Amino acid sequence: MAPVRNARVLFNQAPKGYPVPGETTVYDESQTIDLNTVPLNGGVLFKTLLLSIDPFLRRLMPDGDRDWLQFVVGQPLFGLGIAVVVRSENDDARPGDHFTGMTLHQEYFVSPSVKDMQLLVKEPGLSWAKYLGSAGMVGKTAYKGWREFSKAKKAKTVFVTSGAGAVGSLVIQLAKRDGTKVIASAGSDAKVEYMKSLGADVAFNYKTESTKAILEREGPIDIFWDHVGGETLDIALNAANKFARFIICGSISTYNGENPGVKNTHLLTSKSITMSGFSVLDWDKYDDEFYATFPKLLASGELVSREQVTPGLDQVGQVILDVQKGNTTGKAVILVAEE
Amino acid sequence: MAPVRNARVLFNQAPKGYPVPGETTVYDESQTIDLNTVPLNGGVLFKTLLLSIDPFLRRLMPDGDRDWLQFVVGQPLFGLGIAVVVRSENDDARPGDHFTGMTLHQEYFVSPSVKDMQLLVKEPGLSWAKYLGSAGMVGKTAYKGWREFSKAKKAKTVFVTSGAGAVGSLVIQLAKRDGTKVIASAGSDAKVEYMKSLGADVAFNYKTESTKAILEREGPIDIFWDHVGGETLDIALNAANKFARFIICGSISTYNGENPGVKNTHLLTSKSITMSGFSVLDWDKYDDEFYATFPKLLASGELVSREQVTPGLDQVGQVILDVQKGNTTGKAVILVAEE
Repeated sequence: MAPVRNARVLFNQAPKGYPVPGETTVYDESQTIDLNTVPLNGGVLFKTLLLSIDPFLRRLMPDGDRDWLQFVVGQPLFGLGIAVVVRSENDDARPGDHFTGMTLHQEYFVSPSVKDMQLLVKEPGLSWAKYLGSAGMVGKTAYKGWREFSKAKKAKTVFVTSGAGAVGSLVIQLAKRDGTKVIASAGSDAKVEYMKSLGADVAFNYKTESTKAILEREGPIDIFWDHVGGETLDIALNAANKFARFIICGSISTYNGENPGVKNTHLLTSKSITMSGFSVLDWDKYDDEFYATFPKLLASGELVSREQVTPGLDQVGQVILDVQKGNTTGKAVILVAEE
Repeated sequence: MAPVRNARVLFNQAPKGYPVPGETTVYDESQTIDLNTVPLNGGVLFKTLLLSIDPFLRRLMPDGDRDWLQFVVGQPLFGLGIAVVVRSENDDARPGDHFTGMTLHQEYFVSPSVKDMQLLVKEPGLSWAKYLGSAGMVGKTAYKGWREFSKAKKAKTVFVTSGAGAVGSLVIQLAKRDGTKVIASAGSDAKVEYMKSLGADVAFNYKTESTKAILEREGPIDIFWDHVGGETLDIALNAANKFARFIICGSISTYNGENPGVKNTHLLTSKSITMSGFSVLDWDKYDDEFYATFPKLLASGELVSREQVTPGLDQVGQVILDVQKGNTTGKAVILVAEE
């Protein structure tokens, strides 16, 4: 069989603020691959099906302190994805198997092993896209963070930012299942309606209403689940009850430009607040519990989630920007190829 | 018996930055009290013996957000202290009993009850001043914070700021008893020597050495016990290991002027860091454990602590400033009166 196209999305240059599609990242169709003859050297040839476009991808674009792994100029982006095995010289991967894990933003790639990837077995009624979202890392983030840090039995009021986002929308539902009053914010009226449909007691558009005023009226808050950071975190510290638990799941307001800094950290002391962050990639605690319960709740519809599936590897740069700007609803996924 | 002087330290005006003795607070001898006839209305007449001068007193001087109780202009300061019962109409307090708790900065005062105060029974070999320090709130702060949040068994390296301070010096010793490597900072060479004498493996003067460079060389850190906040907290976040525990015991760099804000809160997420503050005043957990063990360790000399006892109620304003500027070593106490 003749070689086929092996398109890629390359990292091109570090953005100053928001990433710019076509500058920060470029779509490249110059390479081909011969699927029958490409040497595997004991590894696995994968066909990329789906890519997860997460807020943290922005943090892999080097422009300052290198606290995580980073993209390399001229090389493909990488991130979470789902790929299917085309050929294999590894006993743990058979053609047709689906795996999730770190995936190149490239149509086909050879992996030396599958030890850092996870074999997926689909629950009836769940799409593969959900395995990049609520049944995957997104769901684990919400489930594990809530399970470990919320102490929800002692909570009356919860505040969730990015409440229409992939993680936030699940947190709203977990918080309601635990009987708390939920305040949730997002950046559009459509998102406000979505958060209300998920059960949020107070849902508001932070672009048109004052977060400070809402929390003063509806708080104090016992749990803060945050994706925003910066000024919002300061406002939440002011509105926190004694012994509040803050779960820091992201700081998107600080990724794309000026970072005002969090000024109210002294309130951690005076209010006995604990602020916990966690990187779900480093956290396998509760994995078994998660897989035993969460996909079933999603398949039965007891928990709902949205995915925004955009076809085309060439759309990666745009969707990365949309995620940073808050212009997506639910988990953003790129459909690279059908099976 | 004739009325006697009842001197007080009054709150006079909010400081802009550091408090100014004689302006922020004024010493006042204009009042007298008749110890035999002052009406108690079922309460207790106390003679103030000792006052604890703590960093947090600065935060009771209103100049912005009112997150704690605050001093009132024209009224006496208050803070932790030890007082002895002169007369009592309350069955829980007999003349000669010593109590600790919130105490007016005033030679004599009538308290309606003793329910928020604690009766003290002195361990042989411990001074009353220690009961405002290592055998009191200071010791409880170190003991409880370390006990609850350090997870010391999993720690290799600990960083302590204000390591020559009342709490910090105890934390160094607790960390060494748990077998960790201890890095400790303070603001003078004499304090550096003191921290070394307590067992700190790396002790440095942050005014003459770079905290960033020291932590890059001696880190990464698993536990950060902080009294400083601001830029130091950002440096520590950069130098933290994954799963580090930050115990936020104070933020003195932010109390007296410009607060740069903490910019690295996104590292809480990427490094799975938990940052816990606690106000020991709201925290009675571990009280029994503390009293059963800590005073004995102090009396036997297995744990050491320093108190800096300054005689004279008229010195309160100066010692408050000295504490804010870091010019004291160990627990700062005002001796108001001998028994």
